[in-house]
Amino acid sequence: MSIYLYYRVEELDDYIIRFFEKLGVSHADAAIASEVLLSADLRGVESHGLIRLHTYYGSRLQKGTIDPTSPITVINETPATLILDGGKGLGQVVARTAMTRCIEKAKESGMAMVSVRNSNHYGIAGYYAMMALPHNMIGISLTNAQPLVAPTHGRTPLLGTNPISIAVPTETQRPFVLDMATSIVPIGKVTVYDKAKKSIPAGWGINQAGVVTQNPAEVLNGGALLPLGGTDEMRGYKGYGLAMMVDILSGVLSGAAFGGTVGRPRENKGANVGHFFAAINVEAFRPVEEFKKDMDEFLLQMKNAPKAVGEDRIYVAGEKEFELAEYHRQNGVPLMDEVVKSLKEAGDKIGVEFTLKPLRETEGNEM
Amino acid sequence: MSIYLYYRVEELDDYIIRFFEKLGVSHADAAIASEVLLSADLRGVESHGLIRLHTYYGSRLQKGTIDPTSPITVINETPATLILDGGKGLGQVVARTAMTRCIEKAKESGMAMVSVRNSNHYGIAGYYAMMALPHNMIGISLTNAQPLVAPTHGRTPLLGTNPISIAVPTETQRPFVLDMATSIVPIGKVTVYDKAKKSIPAGWGINQAGVVTQNPAEVLNGGALLPLGGTDEMRGYKGYGLAMMVDILSGVLSGAAFGGTVGRPRENKGANVGHFFAAINVEAFRPVEEFKKDMDEFLLQMKNAPKAVGEDRIYVAGEKEFELAEYHRQNGVPLMDEVVKSLKEAGDKIGVEFTLKPLRETEGNEM
Repeated sequence: MSIYLYYRVEELDDYIIRFFEKLGVSHADAAIASEVLLSADLRGVESHGLIRLHTYYGSRLQKGTIDPTSPITVINETPATLILDGGKGLGQVVARTAMTRCIEKAKESGMAMVSVRNSNHYGIAGYYAMMALPHNMIGISLTNAQPLVAPTHGRTPLLGTNPISIAVPTETQRPFVLDMATSIVPIGKVTVYDKAKKSIPAGWGINQAGVVTQNPAEVLNGGALLPLGGTDEMRGYKGYGLAMMVDILSGVLSGAAFGGTVGRPRENKGANVGHFFAAINVEAFRPVEEFKKDMDEFLLQMKNAPKAVGEDRIYVAGEKEFELAEYHRQNGVPLMDEVVKSLKEAGDKIGVEFTLKPLRETEGNEM
Repeated sequence: MSIYLYYRVEELDDYIIRFFEKLGVSHADAAIASEVLLSADLRGVESHGLIRLHTYYGSRLQKGTIDPTSPITVINETPATLILDGGKGLGQVVARTAMTRCIEKAKESGMAMVSVRNSNHYGIAGYYAMMALPHNMIGISLTNAQPLVAPTHGRTPLLGTNPISIAVPTETQRPFVLDMATSIVPIGKVTVYDKAKKSIPAGWGINQAGVVTQNPAEVLNGGALLPLGGTDEMRGYKGYGLAMMVDILSGVLSGAAFGGTVGRPRENKGANVGHFFAAINVEAFRPVEEFKKDMDEFLLQMKNAPKAVGEDRIYVAGEKEFELAEYHRQNGVPLMDEVVKSLKEAGDKIGVEFTLKPLRETEGNEM
């Protein structure tokens, strides 16, 4: 079982900002990237948080495949649509800019869509979808990503874990926030099983012959993840179709890379990641208060429904993550000891020593 | 194995139009409903075709819970958004009107969204998404539906099989057309297994205790379908989240029924089904020719990829259905003998005798 160390979110934020600044990122942009990364660890989405600070961002800033200074430019714009070139910038900065513009346009047009090319890994999709919430809008955020998932009947990774996120405002309930990879699990989950020498459930991934394997090492070495649904019998081709849908709106519509051509973090070329954002101004459809009241009622239909034997709670999307974020904000952000080790190594490499003292440590994550 | 009878599509079309006309539907509207229903059988989506002619449409027209004469009215409209009241009309007619308006608006605004309340079951979602294709637009079509699917950790059906469809234009390849229920399988699939006294794969559905069962009768009698992904281990909560997303955009955003309150076909009340449509004018984002060329390339990346051992073909969404539709248009539309029997019974009941002669019959479906 992994050891977890807990740090104050403000102290981590300060460190990450300094880390990015050292790599040529402006203070304002570093603060954005830090906020998005930390929101992942706060929300319990460890796979998308500080674990990636160096491999996905630091190392690419050093190599110049992420350029933190080039401008974000408009390729085409109409009142309700916008296409942006991210200029190889930090994905978080590009995506936040794009969603900010999307929300502005939806205020005018009732709804808006923004597609982005030439960007980089943007962290958790849900961060940008949730930006719509204070504006009484529904936010949607999609992105393509490095190929890790095989098409149904294939054997090689040709699609990213291409997430779908949608955030919907509510009245008294917590907002509905779906933020899901279109693969069954992220690759990091398979790595965890591999390190623990545990077999994975049948269906998560395939070996290099394209056959379902329970050996995580086979998935990692020449195999691939399977899309949501898994095998044909369980309708894995639906997850495959959803992954393509995300790539069409993010990659093909924007003119970014798509499918097998999206850059991997370790490659020495621009990743040319594509994103897609939409904002739907509820007011353009229904009075906001009516909508929010119905949202509450919809969520309560689920939460108050009879439970399956052995289960004591029905969650709705985002609920667990909101609870985790509140807990971690008060009690410290948990980082695996390995992540802390990688932060120390990365800090030494670029000259921003990681010297934060943990609040405490536990065996296994306490939540 | 079921017996299949094959009928000329033109003859079936003529019959269905007369069937609907007898029930008070105008000729023009009957032609629309017939076209949508037949497109399901043509495309091999038997569960959404003539098998439902009486149970979903005929019986409800007779009871008056579908009203084929009331107008479709505008509740609210902006240049890029529209909300319609379907006036309890035939879902196919309401949906086709809504998507037609959506496409018109996207021509002006670059994209548009239309949400619809007070409608009925609209047939296959893909029909409306595909309406966008000749306009060089991406079409999206969603709908809620009678509750058949349990939320993760629940035991009662509270969500429809709430489909997601997206159609995307291409250059030389067939268009990409994803049209998928957010449950693993439709309820009709479980019925087929039940009639054949075969057990279903573990994960498709649960019994009345909320426990996964392989006995189809338990799913049908007090149990429920599971969302795409199935169990927690396979991330069924993602399918659950997608089903809620569809219902939010179709039901809550439009002011229709949602979740457990959507009417069942056998109930004596209006179903108040909600739909959602979007049209994205490719031109507002990229030159259409560039986009279509990239779409071809994306689809070919998948189709030409190395195959898993034992597989000789990788499909992309919609491909199989296009091939089936062409074959059935030339060689006759296959209807199970039970469906033909139900058509005859329904025809006798409402006074439009079903006397069509099949072109041939086969044991099992030949495709």
